[in-house]
This record gives sequence, structure tokens and C-alpha cells, in this order.
Amino acid sequence: MSWLPTLVTETPEAGFELAIKLSRMAVKKTQPDDAIRGRLRADYENSADSLTMASHVVAVHFQTVAKANNYWK
Amino acid sequence: MSWLPTLVTETPEAGFELAIKLSRMAVKKTQPDDAIRGRLRADYENSADSLTMASHVVAVHFQTVAKANNYWK
Amino acid sequence: MSWLPTLVTETPEAGFELAIKLSRMAVKKTQPDDAIRGRLRADYENSADSLTMASHVVAVHFQTVAKANNYWK
Amino acid sequence: MSWLPTLVTETPEAGFELAIKLSRMAVKKTQPDDAIRGRLRADYENSADSLTMASHVVAVHFQTVAKANNYWK
Amino acid sequence: MSWLPTLVTETPEAGFELAIKLSRMAVKKTQPDDAIRGRLRADYENSADSLTMASHVVAVHFQTVAKANNYWK
Amino acid sequence: MSWLPTLVTETPEAGFELAIKLSRMAVKKTQPDDAIRGRLRADYENSADSLTMASHVVAVHFQTVAKANNYWK
Repeated sequence: MSWLPTLVTETPEAGFELAIKLSRMAVKKTQPDDAIRGRLRADYENSADSLTMASHVVAVHFQTVAKANNYWK
Repeated sequence: MSWLPTLVTETPEAGFELAIKLSRMAVKKTQPDDAIRGRLRADYENSADSLTMASHVVAVHFQTVAKANNYWK
Repeated sequence: MSWLPTLVTETPEAGFELAIKLSRMAVKKTQPDDAIRGRLRADYENSADSLTMASHVVAVHFQTVAKANNYWK
Repeated sequence: MSWLPTLVTETPEAGFELAIKLSRMAVKKTQPDDAIRGRLRADYENSADSLTMASHVVAVHFQTVAKANNYWK
Repeated sequence: MSWLPTLVTETPEAGFELAIKLSRMAVKKTQPDDAIRGRLRADYENSADSLTMASHVVAVHFQTVAKANNYWK
Repeated sequence: MSWLPTLVTETPEAGFELAIKLSRMAVKKTQPDDAIRGRLRADYENSADSLTMASHVVAVHFQTVAKANNYWK
């Protein structure tokens, strides 16, 4: 089964979770090694700027998901 | 209750507050530990570039929220 | 009175000023202390990259404001 | 044959793969030397921020691809 | 007279020039001192990353200008 | 003759090439000296993050070009 069958979600909150998932999948596709990603997690989880950068990527994906759902209107 | 029941807000100012909330929620979802986020707060609150980066994320979310509200027209 | 009653402006230039205001308000909401922001101002005012980063945030908000005004057409 | 005959994909997942491809092609067009790109791979694969930056570029392309496909609705 | 009377330009090339102007005006509004901006110019003109950052801001404004002109179609 | 007579291209691939051209032109307009740009090329061609930053700018322009071409549909 696909990890991304659709961009449609029932609620804005579920859409936000999907945006987070999309952000992480792009990282995983570039660095597929779970152990390395685990080590790197300690880096960005403790850096304000790294967390802001991660939040930025979520924001870009959330634009896409929100539009795909016609802003849940 | 959902922390994000809707993207609709009554006013542009409320929409701006929602954009800030969205920015912070993505950080919280990545680093859920309140104590660590509290410590990191001292870092970015005292760095011009960190504040600009945070402002950038708000700007991206504000695009989404503004569109969802048809620019409050 | 709201600091952001509307995204509508009479002219493109006024829209650009609003985009600058939006950029700065997100900083102010994150770091509300005027004295600290004043000290940080010396940092980014004298750094080419910091100024470019600030200009970037204005550009994102200007997209929003321009669209809200149907590009002043 | 073109490496980019169309932006249309059958599924969201295939669209995400195309977004990754677009991100990498821009790098390849700037640095066409496979050996150098291979060496640089070790750098960004082991840096949390580099991976976030790469994920950001994918997010921007995914906006384009998703829109080209009318969000696969 | 306004420095930004309209976002409409006759040609795509003129639109690109306007995007550059918008990028620079945001810098000027943040750092109005011509002498300081002149000194900083030496910094970013000789840094590959600074030039890429500047090019990024132009790209965001060009999106706005291009849309305002209906892509000069 | 203009270096940018139109945003319309025959194919997606040609549109991608135009996005690369737009990215580079903004750099050239900021740093017109060919010799300096040539020296800086060695910097960003050998830095993973610099290449990702460059790829990001291409992604933003490709959004514009793709939309101008109605996604080549």
C-alpha cells in the first residue's frame, strides 16, 4: 500500500499531521538509514534554528495539503 | 478537542495569531519536551537571525490562513 | 484598535509597507522586549545576509498582501 | 527522450518522487560531475540541517507537481 | 511620486527588474544608511551563498510580479 | 533582443532550463563581474548546502514558469 494514497484529510489537524509526514518522508528518501537518522535527531531536536527550519518545511507542505482540501471549508 | 478545528478566523489579526500558533505547533510536534523547548527559547529570542527565521515561517502560514479566509474580504 | 484591521491598501507602495509591518510584528510577538529587539537591531542592520533574510520575509508577506489587493489592478 | 516529459503523475506518491527528482536535477545541472556529487553526498546525508534543507526543496517542487495534477482529485 | 506606482510591466524582463528593485527596497527600508549598505555590498558580492540568497528573494518577488501581469500572456 | 522575451516554453524540460536561467540572471544582476562569479563558482560547486540552496531558487522559479505554461497541460 502507498504511504501517500491521497492528500485529502478529514480535518485541518489531520492535514497538519500529513504535512509533517511529507516533511519527514523527504528526509527519509534522502537518508534511508534509520540508525543515522536516529543519531541526527539528537542534533536538530536540541537546536532552536534546526527546529525552526523543520517547522518551515511543514509550513510549505501544509500550504499544499490545505489547498488540496480546499481549506476544509 | 482539536487544537486546529478550522483555518477560518474572524479577523486578519486573529489569522496572524493562528499563523504563529501553526509555526509553534510544528516545533512542538518535533520536540515535545517542554523543558527543552524552554531552554531553546533563550537561544532564538536573543538572536536576530533566529527571530527572522521564525518570522519567515509565520509568513508562510499566514499565506495559507489568509487564503483560507479569502483575505477577509 | 487592531494593528491589522485589513489587508487592503490603497496603493502597491502602501502594501509593501504593510508587508514590512507584518514581518516585524512576527518578530515582536516572539520577542516582545523592546530593549532586546533594539540591541539585536544592531546585529542584523550590519549584516548583509541578515538584511537579505529580512527582505525575504517581506517578499513572502508582499505576495499575500498583493493577492489580497488583486495586485491593485 | 526528455527526463521531464510531463508533470502529470498517476498518484500522489509518484508526484512526490517526481518532486525529489526535480530537486536533484537542479543540483546535477549546477554540478554535473558525478564523482564530486558522490563525495558531497556524504556531507549532507550526515547533517540534520542539510537534510532539512533538501526536504524544503522537495516541498517547493511538490507544490508545483501537486497543482499540475489538480491534487490528484 | 511613488517608487512603486504599479506592479504592471510591459515585458517579462521589466518584471524581473522590478522584482530586483523590490528585493533591494526591503533592504533599504531596514537599513536606510547608504554608506553602511555600500560597505555590506562588498560582503555579499563576494560570497556565493549570499548571492544565492539574494537570488532567492528575487525569485519570490518575481512570482508576485509575474502573477500581477498574468504572466505577460 | 531581450534575454527573457517570454515565460512560455514548449516543454516542461525547457521550462526547467528557463528556471535555472532566471536563478542565474539574478546573481549576474547583483554581481556582474564574470571573473568574480567564476571564482565563486568553485565555492558553491563543492558545497552540498550551496548546491541545495541553488536548487531551492530553481524550484521557486520553476513554480512561476510552470504556472505561466499552465503546467504544459
